[in-house]
Amino acid sequence: MKQRAAVVGAAQSRFGDYPTMSIKELFLEAYLAALAELPSGFDPQQFQVMYLGTLGCGGFQLGQAGPTLAGYAGLPQLPCIRVENACASGGFAFAQAVAAVESGSCDLAIAAGVEKMTDLSKSERKLWLGVSGDTEYERLAGMTFAGIYAMMAQRYLHDYNVDRKYLSCVAVKNHLYGSYNDKAQFRSAVDLETALKGMMVAAPLNIFDCSSIADGGAVSFIAGEKLARELTGKPVWVRGVGMGCDYVALHDRESLTGLRASRDAAARAFATAHLAPADIEIAEVHDCFSIAEIMAYEDIGFAPKGLGWKLLADHETYREGRIPVNLSGGLKAKGHPLGATGVAQVAEIVHQLRGDIADERRRAHQPSIGLTHNVGGSGGSAVVSILGLEA
Amino acid sequence: MKQRAAVVGAAQSRFGDYPTMSIKELFLEAYLAALAELPSGFDPQQFQVMYLGTLGCGGFQLGQAGPTLAGYAGLPQLPCIRVENACASGGFAFAQAVAAVESGSCDLAIAAGVEKMTDLSKSERKLWLGVSGDTEYERLAGMTFAGIYAMMAQRYLHDYNVDRKYLSCVAVKNHLYGSYNDKAQFRSAVDLETALKGMMVAAPLNIFDCSSIADGGAVSFIAGEKLARELTGKPVWVRGVGMGCDYVALHDRESLTGLRASRDAAARAFATAHLAPADIEIAEVHDCFSIAEIMAYEDIGFAPKGLGWKLLADHETYREGRIPVNLSGGLKAKGHPLGATGVAQVAEIVHQLRGDIADERRRAHQPSIGLTHNVGGSGGSAVVSILGLEA
Repeated sequence: MKQRAAVVGAAQSRFGDYPTMSIKELFLEAYLAALAELPSGFDPQQFQVMYLGTLGCGGFQLGQAGPTLAGYAGLPQLPCIRVENACASGGFAFAQAVAAVESGSCDLAIAAGVEKMTDLSKSERKLWLGVSGDTEYERLAGMTFAGIYAMMAQRYLHDYNVDRKYLSCVAVKNHLYGSYNDKAQFRSAVDLETALKGMMVAAPLNIFDCSSIADGGAVSFIAGEKLARELTGKPVWVRGVGMGCDYVALHDRESLTGLRASRDAAARAFATAHLAPADIEIAEVHDCFSIAEIMAYEDIGFAPKGLGWKLLADHETYREGRIPVNLSGGLKAKGHPLGATGVAQVAEIVHQLRGDIADERRRAHQPSIGLTHNVGGSGGSAVVSILGLEA
Repeated sequence: MKQRAAVVGAAQSRFGDYPTMSIKELFLEAYLAALAELPSGFDPQQFQVMYLGTLGCGGFQLGQAGPTLAGYAGLPQLPCIRVENACASGGFAFAQAVAAVESGSCDLAIAAGVEKMTDLSKSERKLWLGVSGDTEYERLAGMTFAGIYAMMAQRYLHDYNVDRKYLSCVAVKNHLYGSYNDKAQFRSAVDLETALKGMMVAAPLNIFDCSSIADGGAVSFIAGEKLARELTGKPVWVRGVGMGCDYVALHDRESLTGLRASRDAAARAFATAHLAPADIEIAEVHDCFSIAEIMAYEDIGFAPKGLGWKLLADHETYREGRIPVNLSGGLKAKGHPLGATGVAQVAEIVHQLRGDIADERRRAHQPSIGLTHNVGGSGGSAVVSILGLEA
């Protein structure tokens, strides 16, 4: 590493169903919001590279989305690279931007993510979600994406003899915090009784266990140490980033009840940061389905194997608990516009660390170290980033 | 830069129409061929990261293609990142892998590219090619991808008062060399008279002015200085890589007769390498259409503006000329499986510099410095790499 990297600005657009907004406008809303965090005299021509995470670029109908979006934002000659690792596209774009700055090859990079999903036809939606799992042995054999996580959930509940209500506890917690987030897709709380009785999607996962499709964009700016101090009084330092991959098809994996890609990514991020799971004071984890959040607790190391559900039982991942998770509402309630998700997680942690979350009901108690966890599809890839205030 | 990077192995699969080969098998053929260039005791678990360039991942039906392909090749836990910048996806993947090694964040990276195109339906093919241009103002308005380059060609021939036969001279040269390349899609030479009379596609571009769709894969291995010397007796050093981007829609550009993205990419690569166009002894340039090769001569700096066609008139870009270009047959004859192209260009230059091109009729005269030039779509992005033997 030639220099430390810090996030100096980060924001997301509203997430949800925005039929009148194009993929360009979703990106622009997030870009302008992030730009508003930089000093007023800042010249956007200072940006040197952009990594853009997006799975489908708006209906798989846009090649090289990077220059298309950058040009729309007034940066036509900015070198842009699209990064795609399914639902972890945004997280991997962030990892690449951080690497570019840390290497000294540039001093100011953009990591962005965007997705436009709500205008897809039913068959397109099915394809989009299916492509994140294995194509040959899962999607083309008729497996749905919810079905893949349902198999993991069935196995988890069986192996560790866990009550199904703890899946619903994820939905209850995340919808509660989503109800306080004015950029969230779903802003209604749900009680446990309701969450348990939702329409079945793929047993044991009902509608409250599943994130929805959404439109949205997210943008973050990463600067080298010297520039970071010029651009903000409160840089959020990147302490470590880890990437992991695994077999995409479930039947090839060593276990169904956790994601090796997540474990590898977390281990690498902790090693780089010289930190341990117990040091993390706030996290945004990839809860595309309720079971995914429980597995994330265990894969990251917040809970021992088979005991992730207990953090929910004890309210340890609520705002007042030991390790608050998904105070944004998570993918579940905030929304999951695939490519935007990983970058929006970074924006959330940055704002939590800076203490500038508007609604105190979802503002953590002055954390100084946070973590983001973004998974590609059913665990074919994952990226974990650790961010912290001045040590 | 923390360490120099060198290509220590590179290969392409056969390019063409391979109905019985999947995208996995195309990748594997190239991977195994590249692996055969490493010492027999080499352990593939030494690879630390893979950047995979692909536009469509086989029908836009495969998310996170990286872990899918790596798993198939026996590297399931290798961190993989898919990179997509339309037809320059492979070139950008190579740029990212080089950056990862140069930064010291890893010592051995894979840059790969793959595309499976020949099994697409007619409407899918149209979409695939269209996505590389602008969607909003070009594709959805009815413009074809050949039509976009046809507009550039019309303007070029008009502005510089050039005879249309020089477009055909590109086809004649590249088909000649393609006929000597046993991995090329088209292995028949064509004479000028025939090339001039091809079926019209989009005036002035006829069928001989257009590259075709193809299946194919390409793989290269990039190592840090110390490891490179252990893995090969003839490392090919990366002297400089440059990226450029521009407006995707033609109507926004400052000129139709050249690509600013190419000029910016070339200028950055030359600046990093401390070299000038006159130092280049062999090149592979992006001839998706005949006009593209002529514009490339000018954008890279092999010829002054408006005089690129003259290099063809004088046979300067033939094997015996001052700067041999596309001795592989180029995209035109070797084939253009989009994501594979940029990495296959690297493989060609590596083999030319090492002097291990089997057929001497297309083997350059002991060049020591070569260049690759890979364009995204109609010029929304471009990447130029300069490679050289031991200085």
